[in-house]
Amino acid sequence: MKIKELALLVGGAVEGDDGSDIEGASGIDTAKKSDIVFAVDERRLSQAENSQASCILTIQSIRKSQKPIIRVEDPKLSFLLIYNALLKKTLTGAFIDPSASIAPSARLSKNVWIGPHVTIEDNVVIGDSTIIDGNTFIKKNCEIGDFCHIYPNVTLYDNTILKNHVILHSGAVVGSDGFGYVKNKGMILKFPQIGKVIIEENVEIGANTTIDRGSLDNTVIGANSKIDNLCQIAHNVKIGKNMLMAGQTGVSGSTIIKDNVTMGGQVGIADNVVIGNNVMIGAQSGIFGKIKDNAVIWGTPARPLHDTKRQMAVVAWITKNFKLLSKKMKE
Amino acid sequence: MKIKELALLVGGAVEGDDGSDIEGASGIDTAKKSDIVFAVDERRLSQAENSQASCILTIQSIRKSQKPIIRVEDPKLSFLLIYNALLKKTLTGAFIDPSASIAPSARLSKNVWIGPHVTIEDNVVIGDSTIIDGNTFIKKNCEIGDFCHIYPNVTLYDNTILKNHVILHSGAVVGSDGFGYVKNKGMILKFPQIGKVIIEENVEIGANTTIDRGSLDNTVIGANSKIDNLCQIAHNVKIGKNMLMAGQTGVSGSTIIKDNVTMGGQVGIADNVVIGNNVMIGAQSGIFGKIKDNAVIWGTPARPLHDTKRQMAVVAWITKNFKLLSKKMKE
Amino acid sequence: MKIKELALLVGGAVEGDDGSDIEGASGIDTAKKSDIVFAVDERRLSQAENSQASCILTIQSIRKSQKPIIRVEDPKLSFLLIYNALLKKTLTGAFIDPSASIAPSARLSKNVWIGPHVTIEDNVVIGDSTIIDGNTFIKKNCEIGDFCHIYPNVTLYDNTILKNHVILHSGAVVGSDGFGYVKNKGMILKFPQIGKVIIEENVEIGANTTIDRGSLDNTVIGANSKIDNLCQIAHNVKIGKNMLMAGQTGVSGSTIIKDNVTMGGQVGIADNVVIGNNVMIGAQSGIFGKIKDNAVIWGTPARPLHDTKRQMAVVAWITKNFKLLSKKMKE
Repeated sequence: MKIKELALLVGGAVEGDDGSDIEGASGIDTAKKSDIVFAVDERRLSQAENSQASCILTIQSIRKSQKPIIRVEDPKLSFLLIYNALLKKTLTGAFIDPSASIAPSARLSKNVWIGPHVTIEDNVVIGDSTIIDGNTFIKKNCEIGDFCHIYPNVTLYDNTILKNHVILHSGAVVGSDGFGYVKNKGMILKFPQIGKVIIEENVEIGANTTIDRGSLDNTVIGANSKIDNLCQIAHNVKIGKNMLMAGQTGVSGSTIIKDNVTMGGQVGIADNVVIGNNVMIGAQSGIFGKIKDNAVIWGTPARPLHDTKRQMAVVAWITKNFKLLSKKMKE
Repeated sequence: MKIKELALLVGGAVEGDDGSDIEGASGIDTAKKSDIVFAVDERRLSQAENSQASCILTIQSIRKSQKPIIRVEDPKLSFLLIYNALLKKTLTGAFIDPSASIAPSARLSKNVWIGPHVTIEDNVVIGDSTIIDGNTFIKKNCEIGDFCHIYPNVTLYDNTILKNHVILHSGAVVGSDGFGYVKNKGMILKFPQIGKVIIEENVEIGANTTIDRGSLDNTVIGANSKIDNLCQIAHNVKIGKNMLMAGQTGVSGSTIIKDNVTMGGQVGIADNVVIGNNVMIGAQSGIFGKIKDNAVIWGTPARPLHDTKRQMAVVAWITKNFKLLSKKMKE
Repeated sequence: MKIKELALLVGGAVEGDDGSDIEGASGIDTAKKSDIVFAVDERRLSQAENSQASCILTIQSIRKSQKPIIRVEDPKLSFLLIYNALLKKTLTGAFIDPSASIAPSARLSKNVWIGPHVTIEDNVVIGDSTIIDGNTFIKKNCEIGDFCHIYPNVTLYDNTILKNHVILHSGAVVGSDGFGYVKNKGMILKFPQIGKVIIEENVEIGANTTIDRGSLDNTVIGANSKIDNLCQIAHNVKIGKNMLMAGQTGVSGSTIIKDNVTMGGQVGIADNVVIGNNVMIGAQSGIFGKIKDNAVIWGTPARPLHDTKRQMAVVAWITKNFKLLSKKMKE
């Protein structure tokens, strides 16, 4: 696409020659000729000018450049849109590696791509243009939508449901048994784990993340939610839409997370808790009770961010003035 | 089985027609005709009545129902017992997928089931009626007992020992090298990791959990202990019987955990610590020293639960009254 | 090797018969005849004497033994050196399991060992004497150095680079997409994740650890660094040389860790932070800002170790004396 076409796409203004062809979008350090890059400050702009790149996306309030530039409100967003526009949608097309083991009763729609050493068990259904990459194991009765991408070495237990456009990264395990036991006369008995996992449209799940099936009910991950690497979602958890969950976070059984929740890494959430809409949770927080809509919380146990910070400041002040405090108390 | 037979099994009292056949145990939301469900309060009882279920397990002190009910002390436990009784023990029978790679020197007992793309190396021994599901890799000299179930994509390093009735969920890694190095003249040298992992009877290990082999000694997981997803057990750790360890918990090298310990999620335990019998540890605790038998602890560093809660309350109170405190201190 | 040769190797002094052949180095509990073991105190020395071992490495200041002993400064280090010297460097030699799927365009150097059900995609380059164990998946354009050891069930995404002598344990995922999204008009758009992961010489990565590729730039793990199990390294992170990172630690995007850093387990580091040279970080710390060279820190948020300990002591003291404090404040 030509520079002027890209500018049109992102609503930007071109300075310099707008007729060159752009073939790729890349980072400044790896830019080749005919690539577009983005720069949000003077330092990066200079680096971009010294790279091979043929065009620079940048902000409104920055100096002119000897290279063609496109000025936009949000260069990062514009870069993303241009990247996607330039991405050759090379449909992989129908392919089944001869080393894959596919049950005769499995139903594969058109353009499904199946990599080496994949196993697909009985009655699995796979939608259009979905990629199942190598060494992935899909147990019986799973239903996978259209345009999903499952990376290598993923495991789906039986009866798992993925809607359209779901991405699962390597090592993810979906549908494993929940951690449910009943103690009786000194014995620890395993409670049935026979619910499902349902993953809605447009969800992305990180590498080595685990999502347990419901015990009797289902575990649900709502549309457009994104879960980072090494997270743990326990049985019967219900997650709403548009959640962002950073790495190594864990959610205990039967907890409900409503829509548009954002959380940092290494957060822990207890069982049977309800997290309201639009809640923001700081990294490493521990949550043991209900959280209201729109709360911004941090700490263990999590409190409003301002309260946690104030508590930390007070403890630091008292520690610093401890001699005086202990003297006063002895008076 | 008929309702009256199930009532007999769990020591319950039937109200209504006790002659119907029950074929399955399920959750209320997915119950079919001839299923039994359980309900522990009025709301769930009403839901159960509106489901397809043919019989309801419930508590002693609840209203009558138009459906047949069985009243018991503990409906959850009774449900589990009935579920197991109804489960058709469909022995999978001897099967070896033609895509599996099995060393000639491996010894498989009767009724072993081996899934697609499994590898079993030299001198591995596998007991009766054990299931090794697809893509699992078992290195040389492992010994696996009877009635074990290893899910897909598991890795056992060499010399790992599993006793009978062990369950390993997908992505679990057992027997990996411990994190042991010796620094010498600016070099970081890898210390030999040549011990084993021994997993005793009836242990269940969650998805993507890692258990390192001993360095010279062994790592041991005691009988009936249950470990959730994404936990880390370091080299030389000795865990006793009947432990329940929730997700994302980590135990550092050479620590000893005695019998009947229960811990929440995201707990961290330092190396060379001893945790006594019957200890209970709250979620996200950090443990840096010896814990006595029967302690109930929480926090970082972990203290008796009551002390940690009191400390939190005191800090909250002081924060709230900080203006007064600082004024008093300036007097 | 004879005892006198081993003593020479580690600069130790022999007492007793120095002419016997030693064939292996082992733990005391599993020692066989012709093994050497090490003991650092009287108790272990007695155990070693009662074992089958033929020689005991021990410290300078300990009693004599009826078995041949070698006295050294650091028995653990000497044991490691002897272990490595005795290890028969059984070069595995060139081998490709017939069940492996290897692209014709992949280039394998001499003595490469490829296990069962491995997949190696287009244009992958693998150096001399490297082992790729079973079920491992290596996507296109990866470059792997000499003498690497990749255990079973590992996944390398495309364009990942491993230098020489790198060890990756089972379940590790290297090169997965970073957690990068841009919000726009209520949509969560995936930002391109097209950088690489570069792992330098002599790095060891634990089981089920995940390392994300850079978004536009690269993620780099410096030479001789060792990462334990279940750690998460986010996109664009740069880690220096000689780092030791214990289990379940997570590093957020674009953070820089300089050389010789040591950290305990379950540490969390925020994004865009710089950790100085020689920093030591206690277990479960949370780091939200720049850390200076040589700092020794602990806690959430992390402070100098001494400050965190003092703060904990002050809070404990105030809790203990809370009645008096509240009385004083009411006066």
